[in-house]
Order: sequence, then structure tokens, then C-alpha cells
Amino acid sequence: MYDLVVENAKLYPMAGDALVSPAKVMAVRDGRIAALAESRDDLDGPADVVIDAAGRVLLPGFVDCHTHAVFAGDRSEEHRMRLAGQSYEDIARAGGGIASTVRAVRAASEAALIDASQPRLQALMREGVTSVEIKSGYGLDLANELKLLRATKALGERLPLDISATFLGAHAVPHDRSKSEYLGEVIEIMLPEVAREKLASAADIYVENIAFDNDDLLRLAAAADKAGLRLRAHTDQLSNMGGTALAASLGALSCDHLEFSNTDDVAAMARHGTIAVLLPGAFYFLRESKKPPIAALRAARVPMAVASDLNPGTSPVASLLTCLHFATTLFGLSSDEGLLGITINAARAMGRGAEVGSLEIGKSANFCIWDIPSPDYLCYQLGGLTPAARFFQGQQQ
Amino acid sequence: MYDLVVENAKLYPMAGDALVSPAKVMAVRDGRIAALAESRDDLDGPADVVIDAAGRVLLPGFVDCHTHAVFAGDRSEEHRMRLAGQSYEDIARAGGGIASTVRAVRAASEAALIDASQPRLQALMREGVTSVEIKSGYGLDLANELKLLRATKALGERLPLDISATFLGAHAVPHDRSKSEYLGEVIEIMLPEVAREKLASAADIYVENIAFDNDDLLRLAAAADKAGLRLRAHTDQLSNMGGTALAASLGALSCDHLEFSNTDDVAAMARHGTIAVLLPGAFYFLRESKKPPIAALRAARVPMAVASDLNPGTSPVASLLTCLHFATTLFGLSSDEGLLGITINAARAMGRGAEVGSLEIGKSANFCIWDIPSPDYLCYQLGGLTPAARFFQGQQQ
Repeated sequence: MYDLVVENAKLYPMAGDALVSPAKVMAVRDGRIAALAESRDDLDGPADVVIDAAGRVLLPGFVDCHTHAVFAGDRSEEHRMRLAGQSYEDIARAGGGIASTVRAVRAASEAALIDASQPRLQALMREGVTSVEIKSGYGLDLANELKLLRATKALGERLPLDISATFLGAHAVPHDRSKSEYLGEVIEIMLPEVAREKLASAADIYVENIAFDNDDLLRLAAAADKAGLRLRAHTDQLSNMGGTALAASLGALSCDHLEFSNTDDVAAMARHGTIAVLLPGAFYFLRESKKPPIAALRAARVPMAVASDLNPGTSPVASLLTCLHFATTLFGLSSDEGLLGITINAARAMGRGAEVGSLEIGKSANFCIWDIPSPDYLCYQLGGLTPAARFFQGQQQ
Repeated sequence: MYDLVVENAKLYPMAGDALVSPAKVMAVRDGRIAALAESRDDLDGPADVVIDAAGRVLLPGFVDCHTHAVFAGDRSEEHRMRLAGQSYEDIARAGGGIASTVRAVRAASEAALIDASQPRLQALMREGVTSVEIKSGYGLDLANELKLLRATKALGERLPLDISATFLGAHAVPHDRSKSEYLGEVIEIMLPEVAREKLASAADIYVENIAFDNDDLLRLAAAADKAGLRLRAHTDQLSNMGGTALAASLGALSCDHLEFSNTDDVAAMARHGTIAVLLPGAFYFLRESKKPPIAALRAARVPMAVASDLNPGTSPVASLLTCLHFATTLFGLSSDEGLLGITINAARAMGRGAEVGSLEIGKSANFCIWDIPSPDYLCYQLGGLTPAARFFQGQQQ
């Protein structure tokens, strides 16, 4: 007996290399995928609800595995200044930059954070995203990092969206603190409390010459390991400090950005099973010219994920499909690589590869029906594409 | 007595240089803007319906002044091949390119063309577009060019969208015809029939070394003038053939693309009041590096419009807001220039500057209410933005 059967679908499971399936029928029980079959006759029982997909494309729900989607404040004026030719220094002097978001987050109540962030998550959902990772990192003290993560948890309860939270206390050093003192607080006070309250499943760090270095990464990784959190890292976005190879060797789930990664970094990721998370939204916004080493990643068979990096400063992109398009057109991913990048590889980047990101028996029944000729169409038409129907854990929303 | 009054709005009229208005109240009568006032007390009568905008942003409906949105067929497979590294020659040999769309259009019934095109127009409308220009040019013979224009007319009757049609028989030379013979048919047979049936208000031509030249432009302009159609031209997209200066001198409403235009071309546009239509979607898709001469256009005070160029080959972008974002981030327009580019300047590019594109008394009451801090926000956040309410000729849709 099934809760739901979708029949007459073109199934694209995104499981490993099996992009297309002979299955045309998918059955759901208790919010999970219970069967995949070529016809309803192959199922071992009836269904409460049967949906005829009328030959349309059925894809797993998309996974946006790197976002900073919970924040307060408005930095559009700062963007306007930048478009008008003003420098980063001018903008910082006018109170802009990440400090502006930190101020706004600190001034906002948890309820205000939730209300400000919900429309962004709903925008992602409208395009077929069913799982999203959200990082903290705009609080930069215990109370405000916890507030961000509690708001994130509350959004997961309010929306049907499957949310994974990541603690990114090591996002930036507050203006009024020394790096080592602040990182000590991140590691000794914030991270244990986040773990105790089970507010995040991973810890992340921004390794860059304007933020933290490899020693900091080593300290954070040890603390995360002790607290039972997985490691992720922002590396090689603006320069190569060796963070990618180090994070990979420390067992990081993913290294994210990678514009300045070299073949040694790629080899380290391949050796340690680290996922490469590509963030072409930030590449576009920052008008970067150096691209991640796609050919090397491909040759080394490092799984590539693609995420929106949705954040108020460097990637205010509330559209994973736009970033899929950028990843193919700007970075040169093939359609298949792009599609795997927003499904199974994205799920693996957040340590959820066994639960979401593909159509496989036992996984969460997160999927969408699309009125498009084939999944490639999502890498072709830019804008204007939304699923005909969306299902979160088997429930149509 | 008014049909509708919107009060407590932040009005951005986009009329000339007056981007912001002290008016907070807009009154509508018979589908047109009847009054703009600072308070309801300043109006000279009551209203059937009063809407409280609650301090939100009120903008004119957007105008997408250059599209090829009516077509049949699917070229996503061709795009997939291109992403996988195959050349234009490979793709052409596999039956791709514009010839593929022409075959699909010729094979489609008028009803099928309407059904295929409607979702694209609805995608534009979802983002606040209330006026759109649509070009023919995938029929390339009398019967099929008329079919495209009749489908366009039918879409204007089916949707609340305000549609301007342009006859673009001179889009490409059919494979089995000589250029001069085909252009003769465009000028002597198709164009007079289009004018007789009032199926288009303008005629357009693609001036490029792979299409038509300046002699062809001269011939088409003379025929358009005789038939009472305004002239528009695709010029300087891939090379500079002198088409911009010539089209401007012939009184063209607009010259579109302009990547290869020089300061002489800009001076000619300024002298003749021609609108510069920027099409950053094609620039992005074709991975071009040469940008239109924005600084020169700005210095010469040539009004700049921004359009989607929505078409299946070089700009499958069903989002004017994405093209607004590209125009600012990729081409360097300021937020104000971008916003004027999708409102009043776009209306002028299609010869409708007196009727749509700004909030001015007597104009069509096409407008949207947006839940954003300011219009600049549309040049900042990419994706996920739709109006809170849309009005076409005063009717909420």
C-alpha cells in the first residue's frame, strides 16, 4: 500500500551516472521513495493517490548546498554606489560591507530575522529547491550566532523545506576584536554551545587573506571534530593560501569557491573524497575573471556541486537555476554536470547524500514535475521556469 | 469619480529625469492614469476601489521593447551540444541554428504557435512586464510571416499584455533563396500585406555580415516609410557595417545591440533622436567580450533601453529583470539608467512613449506594486523578485 504513486513520468534519478531511468512510475510511502518501476503492474500494492505526470519530466528536488540566506538589513544602496563607480573603500566608509549586515542582524529580533529571510527561501522553493543549507556568520558573537541558528531552525519548522544548518562563526573577524581572541571564542564558547543545542550539523570557516588562515582552519577542524560537527571550508576564492588541500586532508565534506585552486588542491580533494562546491553567483557579482579549475576537477573525478551562495554582499541571487545557468555558461560545466551539481553532489556536499538529492528507494520523496522537454532545458532557458508540481516528503505543496 | 485609487505608495514615475515623485496617490479612470497627488484630499472625486499600498514601491509596468518571443520548436539540445564543446558547424550540420526554428515555425499551426509562446509571455508578465514588443522573422515567407504576426495579435487578445508587433522578414535569408530575390519578396509582397492587415507597427532588419547590408537597409526603410511602418534595426552586434549611423539618419526609432558601435554611430543616434537598445542577454549567451559604448552613449545623451531579446538561439532569457541586472553588472549602467531602460526609454524605442512606460496623466494605467525597499533593489537581487500586485490598464491581474 502506497500513499502516492506518480505514473507516466520521465524519471531522471540523478543517482550516480544514471541520469535517465527506464522507470516511469514512482511510489511513495511515509514520505519516502518506496518503489521505482516501469509500470504500475510492477508495484506490490495500490495507492491512496495516483498522479498522472502525462509524460512530463520528474526530477529530484534541488539542493542548494551553500547559502547565507538568513540575514537582516538591505545592502541595495551599497550595490547602487558600486554600480555608480564608487570604490569598496568609499562603501566601507559609508558603513557598507559585511559590517552593515552584522549590525542589522544584531539589531533584529529572531522573529524579524525569520520574517526577513522567509521570502528568500520561498523564492528558492518556487524554482524546485527542496533542501537548502544555511550558514550563520553575521552575528559574530555568541548570542547573535545562536539567534541566527535558532531563526534557521524555526524556518525549517515553518516551511516544508529541508534545512541543514552550518555554524560559520569563523566568517569574519569583528572590527573590535583581535583574530586570535575572536577565534578562541568561536572555538571554545560558540561551537560547543551550537553543538550542545544541536543547532548545526557542520562548522565552516572562511580561509582567505582578509579573514582566517590555515592555522585557524586547523584549530577549528579539531574543535568541530571534538563536537561532532562535520567540517566545510570557503577556500581559494580570491587567492590560494593552501586551504583547500589542508581542509581536504582534514576530512572536509566540501571546499567551496575554488577560483584559485590548482592541480595539487584538486588532487587532494580527489584523494579525500571532498566535494567541490562552485559558486558562480559570487563570480558574476564580483566580476571575477579567474574560474575554478573545472577541467582538472573533471579529470580527477572530483564531484562538483553548484550552489547559489545567496548572501547580501557578494551573491544576492535568490535563484539556484540562475546559478546552474551561470555554472554551465560561465564556468563551462556540461548540462549533466550542472544538474548533478544541484542534486546528488549538492546533497553530498552537506553530508546528506544518503537522504536527499536523488530518486532512490529509501530517500526522502522530495521531487518536482516539470513541463520541459528534458532536464537540459534548465541549462538553456534562463528565467521563467518553475515546476508544474512540487512535493516535499511526498506532500504536494 | 475614479475607478481606482492607490494611496500611500512610494511613486517612481520614470518620467524623464523625475525618478522619484512627491505624489503618494495615483488615480485611474477608464484604464488610464487620471491623477497623481500628494494626498487623497487633492483628488477631485471619490473612487470605486481604494488600495492602500502601505508605503510600498509603485513603478510603471515594465516594457520589453525587443523580443522574438513567438516561435515553435526546442533548441535546448543544440545548447547542450554547445556546452559540451561542439562547434557551430557541428550544430548546423546536425540541423541546428535559426533554420531549426524556421522549420518548426513552418510546421506549426497558428494555434500551436500561440500555445508554445504564451508561457514565455506569462513569464515576462510575472516579473512586472506589461508591454512587450514581438518580432516576426522565423517564417521567412509570406504565409509563415503572416502566421507569426497573427499569432502575436491573438496573444494580445488572449492576454492582458500590451503587445507591439514588428515585421522582421529581413531577419535571415532562407537557405534556398538568393538575398536579393528574398529581400525583394520581403519588400514588395510581405511588407505591404503586413501593413494592409495592420499586423505590425514597425519593420526591422538584421544588418550584419551574415545577414543584410546597408543597401538592403535603404531599400527596406523606403518600403517601410511608404507603407506607414516605423523603422527599427539590429546593428553592430558582431561587426560594424555602418548600419547604425545609416539607420539613425533614416529616422529609425531604435538601433539594437550596438556592441561594435563607435562614437560616430553614437553621434548619429544623438543627432536623429534614435534610442539605443541594449541586449545583454545575447551578450551573455554568446560569451561576447566587446560591450556597447555605454560611456559614449551616456555622454551624448542617447536614451538607452534594455530588453530581453527573448529568442531561442542567442537569448533564451524569459526574464527582463535578469537582463536589467546584466545591463547594470555586465555593461555598467547605473541603477537609474537600467530602470529608465525598461520603462520610458523602452516605450520610446517601440514608438509608444506617449502611451506607456511611465506614470503620467493620460497614459495607460499599467503599473505594479513591489515589496522592495526601493527600485534599486531590482538591480541588486537577482532572481526571486515578483510584484506584490500587477495592474494592466487599471485592472488587477
